[in-house]
Amino acid sequence: MTNPTAAMLVIGDEILSGRTRDTNTHYLAGELTKHGIRLAEVRVVPDDRQAVVDAVRALSAGYDTVFTSGGIGPTHDDITAECIAAAFDTPIDVRADARERLAAFSEARGTELNEARLRMARIPEGATLIDNPISAAPGFTLRNVHVMAGVPTIFEAMVSAVLPTLSGGAPLLSQSLTVHRPEGEIAGPLGELAAAFPDLSIGSYPFVRDGAYGSNIVVRGTDAAQIDTAMTQLAARFPEATA
Amino acid sequence: MTNPTAAMLVIGDEILSGRTRDTNTHYLAGELTKHGIRLAEVRVVPDDRQAVVDAVRALSAGYDTVFTSGGIGPTHDDITAECIAAAFDTPIDVRADARERLAAFSEARGTELNEARLRMARIPEGATLIDNPISAAPGFTLRNVHVMAGVPTIFEAMVSAVLPTLSGGAPLLSQSLTVHRPEGEIAGPLGELAAAFPDLSIGSYPFVRDGAYGSNIVVRGTDAAQIDTAMTQLAARFPEATA
Repeated sequence: MTNPTAAMLVIGDEILSGRTRDTNTHYLAGELTKHGIRLAEVRVVPDDRQAVVDAVRALSAGYDTVFTSGGIGPTHDDITAECIAAAFDTPIDVRADARERLAAFSEARGTELNEARLRMARIPEGATLIDNPISAAPGFTLRNVHVMAGVPTIFEAMVSAVLPTLSGGAPLLSQSLTVHRPEGEIAGPLGELAAAFPDLSIGSYPFVRDGAYGSNIVVRGTDAAQIDTAMTQLAARFPEATA
Repeated sequence: MTNPTAAMLVIGDEILSGRTRDTNTHYLAGELTKHGIRLAEVRVVPDDRQAVVDAVRALSAGYDTVFTSGGIGPTHDDITAECIAAAFDTPIDVRADARERLAAFSEARGTELNEARLRMARIPEGATLIDNPISAAPGFTLRNVHVMAGVPTIFEAMVSAVLPTLSGGAPLLSQSLTVHRPEGEIAGPLGELAAAFPDLSIGSYPFVRDGAYGSNIVVRGTDAAQIDTAMTQLAARFPEATA
């Protein structure tokens, strides 16, 4: 598939310790697929400067677009912005427009724009701000890296702001079919079908439900007619399948 | 922290397309933490030979232990076993004991041990099998890489089989506290506390609930007494906090 590629970088000890379940990756995956961008890799790294810098460099070089999640708040463990700056050898400092957003938000809520909050106005030189409609502290885009909050509601709002600015490819379409037989019995015909449709991705995902084995077969691609043809052939080979 | 390190490699287009939500990482993270092993990186890659080989090599070299999830079934898109073999330049072929397990399982169910199913008996030379109490097809351990099924029930059973064979470190303990104030107001004192306890990891995880801002503060480490001391100081600084 020649669709543009993206990578996701999740930054946070809390995911790696098992305390928090990452939901941002699954959300982003679905949105990118709708937009015709292929999520090609995900990494989760701890709140560790070298780990973040290394991952940002590798993913930024390897894929068209990178999204990061987490580590842009006001506390000592929020190191993402400075890591992004370091990854690209770019200076970072408090920026006037980011500071103004935080000041307006603080004033409206009667809170103080203290030193900790001001850290959230530190933006690498040359970056573009990403709106945060929920708690003001902006994300930012530097080169092909979009730096976003970890809180899911804010992350999702930022994805909505960024996606329209990216050029997607043809939408990635998919159809699926459930065969109530174990994978081992359908693998042969399925492999032949996959070989006959090299432009499609034909995946098989086994499950066990109430002690019975089955497989969900998913056909993905960008050509709707070709997917239809493959699905027709699939249904003919597995007449007992259900949609 | 000097605990042993681990990495998780999730292999599967279905996770990256947003079709399926990966639950194995969160499960593994919790189990490793209990066992005193620090999950230090997670990667998700597609069903692509080069991507899997590259990730296996990088993670195997970078961490004490690697766990993989997915891609060991009977279908054409199940390429994990051959990728692991390729990553370590190791021959791979059908192995007698793995074949026997599949044959016994097939016989008991009255199904055929066909060519597709036999692929699941292909094991890299020198590997140790990992029991699959659910559908017989074994996982395997090669060097420091544990190769396991993607189906969550089977993945979890395999983790249970592998974990007792690994030497863990001191259990990673944690205590948490909820402060019903926005992160920006607690960041200063929290940073001072983190500086005072360099052996502990003190994380802050903001949330918005019913329109009100709050932060969960999590103190992690291996020394229970030290964590207790930090929690006492934390509670003194934020008297309105709740457990």
